[in-house]
Amino acid sequence: MIQSRDARSGQVLNDVAEETNADQLDTVCREAAEAFAELEQAGRHGRADMLAAMADALEEDRDEIVACADRESALGTARLNGELTRTCFQLRFFTEVLSDGAYLEATIDHAGPTPMGPRPDLRRMLRPLGPVGVFGASNFPLAFSVPGGDTASALAAGCPVVVKVHNAHPATSVLCARALAEGERRAGVRGQVVSLVFGDRSSAALVEHPAVRAVGFTGSLVGGRFLSDVAAKRPSPIPFYGELGALNPVVVGPQAARLRGEAIADGLAGSFTLGVGQFCTKPGLLLLPEGEAGDALRDRLSEAVRATSAGAMLSDRVAGAFQEGSQHLRHLDGVRVLAEGGLGRDGLAFPGAPLLLQAEPDALGGRLREECFGPVLVIVRYAGVDDLSRLVSTLTPALTATVQADGADISLLRPVVSQLSSQAGRIVWNGYPTGVAVAWAMQHGGPYPAATDPLHTSVGASAIRRWLRPVTYQDVPAELLPPELGDVPQPRDAVPRRVDGHLVLPPGYQGA
Amino acid sequence: MIQSRDARSGQVLNDVAEETNADQLDTVCREAAEAFAELEQAGRHGRADMLAAMADALEEDRDEIVACADRESALGTARLNGELTRTCFQLRFFTEVLSDGAYLEATIDHAGPTPMGPRPDLRRMLRPLGPVGVFGASNFPLAFSVPGGDTASALAAGCPVVVKVHNAHPATSVLCARALAEGERRAGVRGQVVSLVFGDRSSAALVEHPAVRAVGFTGSLVGGRFLSDVAAKRPSPIPFYGELGALNPVVVGPQAARLRGEAIADGLAGSFTLGVGQFCTKPGLLLLPEGEAGDALRDRLSEAVRATSAGAMLSDRVAGAFQEGSQHLRHLDGVRVLAEGGLGRDGLAFPGAPLLLQAEPDALGGRLREECFGPVLVIVRYAGVDDLSRLVSTLTPALTATVQADGADISLLRPVVSQLSSQAGRIVWNGYPTGVAVAWAMQHGGPYPAATDPLHTSVGASAIRRWLRPVTYQDVPAELLPPELGDVPQPRDAVPRRVDGHLVLPPGYQGA
Repeated sequence: MIQSRDARSGQVLNDVAEETNADQLDTVCREAAEAFAELEQAGRHGRADMLAAMADALEEDRDEIVACADRESALGTARLNGELTRTCFQLRFFTEVLSDGAYLEATIDHAGPTPMGPRPDLRRMLRPLGPVGVFGASNFPLAFSVPGGDTASALAAGCPVVVKVHNAHPATSVLCARALAEGERRAGVRGQVVSLVFGDRSSAALVEHPAVRAVGFTGSLVGGRFLSDVAAKRPSPIPFYGELGALNPVVVGPQAARLRGEAIADGLAGSFTLGVGQFCTKPGLLLLPEGEAGDALRDRLSEAVRATSAGAMLSDRVAGAFQEGSQHLRHLDGVRVLAEGGLGRDGLAFPGAPLLLQAEPDALGGRLREECFGPVLVIVRYAGVDDLSRLVSTLTPALTATVQADGADISLLRPVVSQLSSQAGRIVWNGYPTGVAVAWAMQHGGPYPAATDPLHTSVGASAIRRWLRPVTYQDVPAELLPPELGDVPQPRDAVPRRVDGHLVLPPGYQGA
Repeated sequence: MIQSRDARSGQVLNDVAEETNADQLDTVCREAAEAFAELEQAGRHGRADMLAAMADALEEDRDEIVACADRESALGTARLNGELTRTCFQLRFFTEVLSDGAYLEATIDHAGPTPMGPRPDLRRMLRPLGPVGVFGASNFPLAFSVPGGDTASALAAGCPVVVKVHNAHPATSVLCARALAEGERRAGVRGQVVSLVFGDRSSAALVEHPAVRAVGFTGSLVGGRFLSDVAAKRPSPIPFYGELGALNPVVVGPQAARLRGEAIADGLAGSFTLGVGQFCTKPGLLLLPEGEAGDALRDRLSEAVRATSAGAMLSDRVAGAFQEGSQHLRHLDGVRVLAEGGLGRDGLAFPGAPLLLQAEPDALGGRLREECFGPVLVIVRYAGVDDLSRLVSTLTPALTATVQADGADISLLRPVVSQLSSQAGRIVWNGYPTGVAVAWAMQHGGPYPAATDPLHTSVGASAIRRWLRPVTYQDVPAELLPPELGDVPQPRDAVPRRVDGHLVLPPGYQGA
């Protein structure tokens, strides 16, 4: 039985659902395959209307959803209201992506001569893959779960979604799915375009189901790698998009340390303890210059940590992993504790207290190079830019890499920025990595282990590319072509296209 | 020792190279990692110049290369001259892709307010992955081997290439690599941007090498799946782009059979026996209507097959696999031989004679649904469109699906075309699938087993996408941004971009 728990008290609130068994999972996946035709039938504009209606329905249930998510996650209603706003914004954002239509990569090469002989008429466009499986994360019950970047982008693409419900927020998941279904109904789309499966035994079974054509995952390195391997071992392997863990290094330049040491210390303390450190973009490593300015920054950061109390973590599992991981790190050779946060208020079942460590440069290996999910930050001091560059070269890829730099730091750190951009999906300048905007230009991913597939993003407009594959129509009659590939499409079917080698924007396209 | 053999006589011509050992492979891969910086340094325009110079250098060595490839492959000088022309065209085609620059997907979101609070300045662009491994195919010694779609697109992206030389044409590979190196030298690029490794023990070792960040493969299902699994099992998995085998079904509509039966029979006979059936797009299954017109088409096709002699296959391995596969198929229950080609001229060491089979609809399973590489075509008859649709639903995905249709066939076959477009990378209308144009709108790939990654193509402009990953620069100072992401780029850095949600073409862009 899948139960809803109060994340602050640890108490069971109620039963939510039975674990999905194999037959039920098979039925759900087959129904998703049937809904695939319905989403195709709805077309780009019908799917955009559906996403907007889903956002409206989620907004209507805001109070109930946020209250439930707060009980199950302890993330607080302010944060969760923001998360619901984000998830609705994201659904509406994909209506823009659909309306724009460039995501289809519509391309036409008219028949003509080539040095190899005559070329036929070729028309290429991206088409949806089919039903996809989505694994939501415990730390974003509203923005990376039943609704979220994977679900919004997959539905936009035309792919029905089967969500493996996260055990940490099953009641929230059911409420969200109800709202999404209501939005779908209002938009006149039929079929199960979003469905839920429950229980850990459903995880591998979902990835293995023949009807499932791709998987989106947000979560831990261990869990993600396990399911990625399951996807790769299928008789017919499928794409697996795992957004896993990251150390998210922060480099502070010597001048920035001198000029803005206090502000950077305060900003970092806020960033690594935000949401009890339960962000995949949490900064986990601080590369700080040796010398007085670096010492002062370190001391200020230590003070801030000591002034921060433990918060309620998402679940016993998350809190247990944090305890184990932070205990391991603090007892490594070459590692010492700089500061610890207070115990916090009584009665927290799964407390997580902030922890600031310092590691000798030579100790930076093994688990010190891996994400420890929770409010822990490790400082390593560097002597000069060569030393810094050597340290950076030993890091594993990450979702983000942050640089704090002023004045002379900019040219000093140029080679380090180049190094970091080969190891991270996003370079953050004079900011903090927590906070991932839903935007056209966002990249949330990176080389392994940041993500299992380095080519894609799980946040932002391009997230839709993960659920699409190209199809070329050679000499196919106009009446059988997708409407976006006709020679003179109707206004509603007119999208940016590449025609005979050149991009062409539709009449009246904004920005043209 | 890797030896060059005459594919017609089977005789060893000469030793070409020692098998690459583990230390040598490590050195080659490390040198490729160093060359990565050189290709970045060269920039888009420098890489375009290099590709053009490589094409020139290949043209200069045309006679020597074609003669050598003809000895090693028996494909004939006419075909191989065409293949060299194609490979040079492809290198020059990617200079256009580079010059256009839209492949970078440059995207800018200026800072601004959002419902979730202020958004930073975000600039996103695709960056090269790093060194890539390429496995060429035996059947295209000039167009899918040392030079070819993988190498051209990877170099264009900025990724050095390490080629595992195909055992069937090692001397040709060395000549081609020499020409590519000469082109690189003339363009003033330094470092080993294309290097070779020899021997089957290098295959898995190349895929496993930590410096290798992606792999392109063209070849068999068994070999491709093996190496794909190696890539997936790495400590840090990497993208593996395998273009594997395909059955490439052909559907003939009732009206087309009546109106153009003879022409279709002749066209199909030419297509499936072209190059001794050694094309990945060879049609392997013909779905033909029952009745007189279908009978006549079948009989004409049988005649054409009987009039076609055996040709020299690429190697003992290819010929052996064809013998085994075609023997297996012809002895299956429900399968009978309609026609066989003649033995051909004496003295062929590895002959392949065309074979036309007919299978009962119920027999269409197992190896009848898999590619048999070589000149074999299986006919299955269908009674009506429902029967056809049921047969099509049992097929595995393919690189291509061909439809021959006239008049009333078009509406009759509409649902079948829809089915086929969910199972194939390219729909060919009233044509034949052999022949893959290098073009912006080409798609050469498909869902597994056609390809290991359904999202990409190995031929055409979009092939470059496989070697690139997105990086977002958040609030990064202009002087550290790639030049294509500046607010007002220089003319040579101006590319199509998405700015604040809308595509913008550079001043003077053709097609704007």
